[in-house]
Amino acid sequence: MANIEHLQTVNVPAAKVYETLTTAEGLSEVWTNELIVRNQVGSMNEFRFGGHDADKMRIEELIPNNRIVWRCMDSDPEWIDTVISFDIEEKNGKSFVTLRHMNWKEVTPFYRSCNYNWAIFLYSLKSYCEQGEGLPYQKRKF
Amino acid sequence: MANIEHLQTVNVPAAKVYETLTTAEGLSEVWTNELIVRNQVGSMNEFRFGGHDADKMRIEELIPNNRIVWRCMDSDPEWIDTVISFDIEEKNGKSFVTLRHMNWKEVTPFYRSCNYNWAIFLYSLKSYCEQGEGLPYQKRKF
Repeated sequence: MANIEHLQTVNVPAAKVYETLTTAEGLSEVWTNELIVRNQVGSMNEFRFGGHDADKMRIEELIPNNRIVWRCMDSDPEWIDTVISFDIEEKNGKSFVTLRHMNWKEVTPFYRSCNYNWAIFLYSLKSYCEQGEGLPYQKRKF
Repeated sequence: MANIEHLQTVNVPAAKVYETLTTAEGLSEVWTNELIVRNQVGSMNEFRFGGHDADKMRIEELIPNNRIVWRCMDSDPEWIDTVISFDIEEKNGKSFVTLRHMNWKEVTPFYRSCNYNWAIFLYSLKSYCEQGEGLPYQKRKF
């Protein structure tokens, strides 16, 4: 098994980061503007990137201002049954966000590409929370 | 042992990526403008980030337009004896750059932060190679 793990500092309180990661408004600025976001454990979030089928993420855990866990139910075969978590720790008004994408079967070119792209997700999260403008899929240059 | 592995597409030929990663001009735009770069196996590159001591990287391998390997000789204790490699594969005028930072003793908050920051290095590399403007340490917002 292989995991992806990142730590990012976002200079806003945890409540702002949590809200961004649990609402269509926030995730459309940070990740992709083709999405369906539900905010309830057991429900399915859906994210689209261009012409591909939706990535479906079942919401496994929601602890307000602290922790979000998704399990990937439909996506690229390498993603199915992987688990994505966001842990938010607030200190002195700043948020320390640990992102984990766990249970990859092996380290592949797709793993390496996704590791890069999760960092860009966190870069976009920081930019949106601090300055009001994210870098979603639709604005990126590949 | 834990590794960091990223894959990034840069829409320029491999020669441009290789030149960027082996010259003071290139690395000062991509990583930090406080640096000493030598371009010979066995020599030491030095990189400074603000007030810290220099990170010293011994050049272990140089295969023009294809592969660069550094071994960290002085830096944060978690980096010492870790190995950083860049593999560049060119297809149809594009470069596929695999960055590895290998031999971490364990996954720590510093590992997670560095994983994020290596992606930003690759984002900066892409921006510099494709558009002429990188995002070195001195221009970043933390």
